[in-house]
Amino acid sequence: MEKIEISQNETEDLFNKLTMQGQGHGYFLNYDEKIAKSLCEALLKNEKRYGHQVCPCRLSAGSREADLDVICPCDYRDPDLLQYGVCYCGLYVSKKIFTEKTPTKPIPERRPNKETRLLNKQKYMEEINQPKDINKLPYPVMRCSVCGYICARTDAPEVCPICGASHDRFQRFF
Amino acid sequence: MEKIEISQNETEDLFNKLTMQGQGHGYFLNYDEKIAKSLCEALLKNEKRYGHQVCPCRLSAGSREADLDVICPCDYRDPDLLQYGVCYCGLYVSKKIFTEKTPTKPIPERRPNKETRLLNKQKYMEEINQPKDINKLPYPVMRCSVCGYICARTDAPEVCPICGASHDRFQRFF
Amino acid sequence: MEKIEISQNETEDLFNKLTMQGQGHGYFLNYDEKIAKSLCEALLKNEKRYGHQVCPCRLSAGSREADLDVICPCDYRDPDLLQYGVCYCGLYVSKKIFTEKTPTKPIPERRPNKETRLLNKQKYMEEINQPKDINKLPYPVMRCSVCGYICARTDAPEVCPICGASHDRFQRFF
Repeated sequence: MEKIEISQNETEDLFNKLTMQGQGHGYFLNYDEKIAKSLCEALLKNEKRYGHQVCPCRLSAGSREADLDVICPCDYRDPDLLQYGVCYCGLYVSKKIFTEKTPTKPIPERRPNKETRLLNKQKYMEEINQPKDINKLPYPVMRCSVCGYICARTDAPEVCPICGASHDRFQRFF
Repeated sequence: MEKIEISQNETEDLFNKLTMQGQGHGYFLNYDEKIAKSLCEALLKNEKRYGHQVCPCRLSAGSREADLDVICPCDYRDPDLLQYGVCYCGLYVSKKIFTEKTPTKPIPERRPNKETRLLNKQKYMEEINQPKDINKLPYPVMRCSVCGYICARTDAPEVCPICGASHDRFQRFF
Repeated sequence: MEKIEISQNETEDLFNKLTMQGQGHGYFLNYDEKIAKSLCEALLKNEKRYGHQVCPCRLSAGSREADLDVICPCDYRDPDLLQYGVCYCGLYVSKKIFTEKTPTKPIPERRPNKETRLLNKQKYMEEINQPKDINKLPYPVMRCSVCGYICARTDAPEVCPICGASHDRFQRFF
């Protein structure tokens, strides 16, 4: 595989961009800047290699479409942050871990295998064209009791991305 | 009650964090920094005393669960900002008051009494497990006509937290 | 028409405010700062003239209510950014154009004529009071597969305003 060089400036730029994007929306890069920046560098290498910033800890399947769920931030980050306080790579950590600088540990892979992913996708695409029933949506809709922000996810976020309210201020809306 | 000391640095940090969290989401701390910072200091004292940043102008019931609706930002801030341009404490003001530096006045307490809160909560918990009807949700869903942001609240926010559009750009969606 | 003077400071302030508001929510001012700032100046002139920041490239009808859909950011910006990578004025450009500094071209006017706008509004106001049907809402609800952000718009945004995920990470939710 050809050697890909990323300058320190490029890495710093991505690190700063992701830090800023996260700030105020309740997402935090690893408090250990060395880890966070080495992952930023790996993302930039993957972008040059594959054309998209695929997760440095997963294997690219070579196409954007096949990698879509593991382009960083991956579809599994938010459930991992809630359950383990850290994403699979360790690029993102929970607010709690960021604040307390708790050492992070490796976590299990949440991504289903390829066959399951394909089946899930097929099922979703079939359902998408069916008449909708508010009682049978694929995700519950959670509501922030402070600002009324609503999002569709298995569990509420750790921090409301709009007003900063904590996880326990969310309730199921429908 | 034991004396709790908060350093000026801690107060400045919270003030800056809340200012930044608010910026770009349409929330503004009191233009009078002396007021805003003394409330930030009181929040930090409450955090040390009770474990959570309960509103400095309300009495803590001693547990996070019982105080949940008045942990800052409280559940009543946004309706108060819309109706009076200021929250109960005066920590947050509307964009209009922030910009024009209008003096703020004390406002009535919107928080229901303990019995009503318990009844409301019971009612909500019962409803939450019922089949949903899009015509009988506990809050209307408002939509920003500029960016499509949707939120579930009695009235639209003063400013769209995503695109900055004004209150009158929102319409009821369902 | 009387001459309205806008100071360079006022223009810089609006430019900085809009840049910051856009940052982190996936909106980008024209990479050509000269263009962006001259449009900011025109918005401030319009504010002094009409009382609201009506789009510099459209004719004000003289009242806030009649201009509501073309107060900047206008109701047509987001579809134009998706289709052409630039808004009608050129104040906003897509992330792609911002990053690559692609020259922008004039785009067609998307705003319907006055009669159609009135008809659309009447229709919306009639529907708003009807019982809702999740299968007959005026806009689809799109969901970000990374963070669960949901918004109601004809097509998903170029960038998720909450987590920064790209357009193709969105799916129809209902």
